[in-house]
Amino acid sequence: MSEGDRTLDPADWESVRSVGHRMLDALVDGLRDVRDGPAWTPMPPEVKARFRAPAPERGLGLEEVWAELRRSVLPYRLGNVHPRFWARVMGTGTATGVLAALAGAAMNNNLSGLESSAVHVEAQVVDWLKTLVGFPATASGVLTSGCSLANLIGIEVARDSAGAVKAEGLQSVRERLVGYASEEAHSSIARAFMVLGLGNASLRRVPVDSEMRMDLGALERAIEADVRAGLRPFCVVGCAGTVNTGATDPLEALADVARERRLHFHVDGAFGAWARLSPRVAGQVRGLERADSVALDLHKWGSVQYGVGCVVVRDAEAHRRAFQASAGYLAPHPRGVSAAESAAHELGPELSRGFRGLGAWMAFQEHGLERLRAVVEKNVEQAGRVAARVRGEAELELTAPAPLNVVTFRYRGRGLSDPQLDVLNAEVVMRIQESGLAVPSTTRLRGRTVIRLAIVNHRTVDADLDLLVDAVLQTGRAIAAEGV
Amino acid sequence: MSEGDRTLDPADWESVRSVGHRMLDALVDGLRDVRDGPAWTPMPPEVKARFRAPAPERGLGLEEVWAELRRSVLPYRLGNVHPRFWARVMGTGTATGVLAALAGAAMNNNLSGLESSAVHVEAQVVDWLKTLVGFPATASGVLTSGCSLANLIGIEVARDSAGAVKAEGLQSVRERLVGYASEEAHSSIARAFMVLGLGNASLRRVPVDSEMRMDLGALERAIEADVRAGLRPFCVVGCAGTVNTGATDPLEALADVARERRLHFHVDGAFGAWARLSPRVAGQVRGLERADSVALDLHKWGSVQYGVGCVVVRDAEAHRRAFQASAGYLAPHPRGVSAAESAAHELGPELSRGFRGLGAWMAFQEHGLERLRAVVEKNVEQAGRVAARVRGEAELELTAPAPLNVVTFRYRGRGLSDPQLDVLNAEVVMRIQESGLAVPSTTRLRGRTVIRLAIVNHRTVDADLDLLVDAVLQTGRAIAAEGV
Repeated sequence: MSEGDRTLDPADWESVRSVGHRMLDALVDGLRDVRDGPAWTPMPPEVKARFRAPAPERGLGLEEVWAELRRSVLPYRLGNVHPRFWARVMGTGTATGVLAALAGAAMNNNLSGLESSAVHVEAQVVDWLKTLVGFPATASGVLTSGCSLANLIGIEVARDSAGAVKAEGLQSVRERLVGYASEEAHSSIARAFMVLGLGNASLRRVPVDSEMRMDLGALERAIEADVRAGLRPFCVVGCAGTVNTGATDPLEALADVARERRLHFHVDGAFGAWARLSPRVAGQVRGLERADSVALDLHKWGSVQYGVGCVVVRDAEAHRRAFQASAGYLAPHPRGVSAAESAAHELGPELSRGFRGLGAWMAFQEHGLERLRAVVEKNVEQAGRVAARVRGEAELELTAPAPLNVVTFRYRGRGLSDPQLDVLNAEVVMRIQESGLAVPSTTRLRGRTVIRLAIVNHRTVDADLDLLVDAVLQTGRAIAAEGV
Repeated sequence: MSEGDRTLDPADWESVRSVGHRMLDALVDGLRDVRDGPAWTPMPPEVKARFRAPAPERGLGLEEVWAELRRSVLPYRLGNVHPRFWARVMGTGTATGVLAALAGAAMNNNLSGLESSAVHVEAQVVDWLKTLVGFPATASGVLTSGCSLANLIGIEVARDSAGAVKAEGLQSVRERLVGYASEEAHSSIARAFMVLGLGNASLRRVPVDSEMRMDLGALERAIEADVRAGLRPFCVVGCAGTVNTGATDPLEALADVARERRLHFHVDGAFGAWARLSPRVAGQVRGLERADSVALDLHKWGSVQYGVGCVVVRDAEAHRRAFQASAGYLAPHPRGVSAAESAAHELGPELSRGFRGLGAWMAFQEHGLERLRAVVEKNVEQAGRVAARVRGEAELELTAPAPLNVVTFRYRGRGLSDPQLDVLNAEVVMRIQESGLAVPSTTRLRGRTVIRLAIVNHRTVDADLDLLVDAVLQTGRAIAAEGV
């Protein structure tokens, strides 16, 4: 094997450059024209079968890999880049986000405490997010792969403030630790309780009121009952924008309860925290700025490419204490690469990780807060428009208030039972997805399957949503006529 | 504000395309010519100061952001793309990895259980990695941001097999759970114990033998003592390639101990697992294939861009059971985007996350196993060459065996005490880093500061390592002459 075969660099850099320019053109074209194509395309079985081959012993070369990428991968992307994708809560990303990924990958920076520009870029992004959530500059923060880990970090800081958990483990704490979140809280909160060893059952799910917000009386009663039973409440989690309906818990009141009872107050603001960008919407999440920790995503309403989330923690020392680890090979020196001022690798469960902050750093500067705010305001207006139209259509039923950017509704055929309507509405969603027109999703609300749109999409124009409602009506009628 | 201001898409797609092509050329040039520049450049204070500005209210536009990226960010990247970067254990990435990031960001795929090509790409990569570590196809696996979370997942599966931890928490388990790893195990193992609520002290650090491998007798004695004390051993962690010296624990023997004592056997094979690519080196990690779970990184010896790791778990059902969560908005449907066959979002602490697998998928196919193997073999040979030269230089001391791709050594001036040599060797490393010639790092071995090279670098040629050893000799002499 020649020396050139013992590196992964190309023998001919011009060949890489050539593929790169063609790829860039194809991808820019694809984003420019995304509206003209389907929102989602199911992958045919014969394409799926291609992904079962073992790794080749001999390489195929870059041209062939690029051809296969065009054939089997790009056409079947999820579709959240499309203007009519509203499933789950997914951001679309931007063209600049694509360029940020390009530059970030060329730097290939590892953020694990060594000094480089990437450390400063991410520190600046975290500073901007502290400002966004109304935290002081003395707070601490770190970028994560998304809100699941951001929530986990916030709750871990809370857990570790409750005793010698970091050193001796939860089994050394006599009174069982319990926390509180509403029934509508995101699944990542329960999962954080599982990962952290607290257990799913130690997260008390507090009922919600008619507007899907945590019932304060029920919270107080749950805490009292736990205290009486000898358990140890340590944390309350508020939602700023629930995934199901966009509801926000009474955060001001939760902050008061937390202060009075000496609980850690964590807010899951995955997309809702971005409401603070706009004076028109910020009132909905008032009280978020009083939290002890806030988790939020950048790849949702921040419109940066996947996957970037952030957690900010008011007590920087508690944050660092929870995750700090030492090792001979991590020892800092006063100069050189080990002299980084950042301790981002001591603020979460990761050590080596990629350069997550560049897309946000570029986006905030390219667009300014002004343009990011305009997207938030547009999407909230659009949700309001859909809700108003649904209220005006006799065949549709608005199934929950739509205060922010999430709308839930249901096609209601005449004389159909709730279980029949569950089937019908799921079928409506599947057919619309399969048609490629749009990607709404479903959820379960108070035991019923409903159609759900989460509008975190800077590409969506009002007419896109009209098309979707039209399609729901037509498809609903067709299925009702076929018989459910 | 006009409609065009309410999207983050550019008014003029040609302007994005233009910046993109210029950026691509600059970045390809940068990689092609990386050898001609410094391995690392410290960031001047006036550049650092630029990263303290608040987010702008009005956007600067893409051209200005690209200019600032060139001015303040790109020149100060960490340097692991350079042929003479050997600090910590860092992969260099490839040109193809840059293009993979470009394509991945344009797809902007979210992997949280929805059907898309990205799901199939990642499943194929995980299948390839199962084969790499010698696991059966029935095993389970998931891509993570790196080995820290991969280790955490493996140990969480072990923890949750020990009782009703997922539902009721560790506080419901009466006997304290304890696990075992060598003194040389990576800091992420201890951190996983902290995050999982087990506690740092519940990870017993077993002494190592003269070759830095876990002492089996000491392990047996530690287990016996814990059992006698009423504690409950649940897990033993073996290292395949320690970060300090590249040593590998006696994995065959650990597999026997784990089977006999019914412990979960997890292997941290962050880079060492890649030894299995080569028949010449695979013997060093024999027994790894008998583990219950293996963690490995792709961004180290896999040479893909940061950050991608993987955990494979033999018992797929135990893996899924540990992380499965349900929610109304996650309910699957038989067709449409919710019909994904993948459960990758149920195999770790994340839900939404980015498309991590594309770089590896492209790299394995472009280069073939043949070229990836050649890099592993080259780096191991290079470590052997450096060790041989160090042994031959009177002023240098090899401070540990170098069986794999990590070499540790020390400059030993005449008549200097150990503490003086600690200062001298750290100063050698800082000066070489500051000069831009190369980036070695340091570690502490048996209480002494040593110079450390971890060669996971497909760009390194033998002459690069000769330059480094020459520089250590010259710099060591200069510092000794100045007086420590």
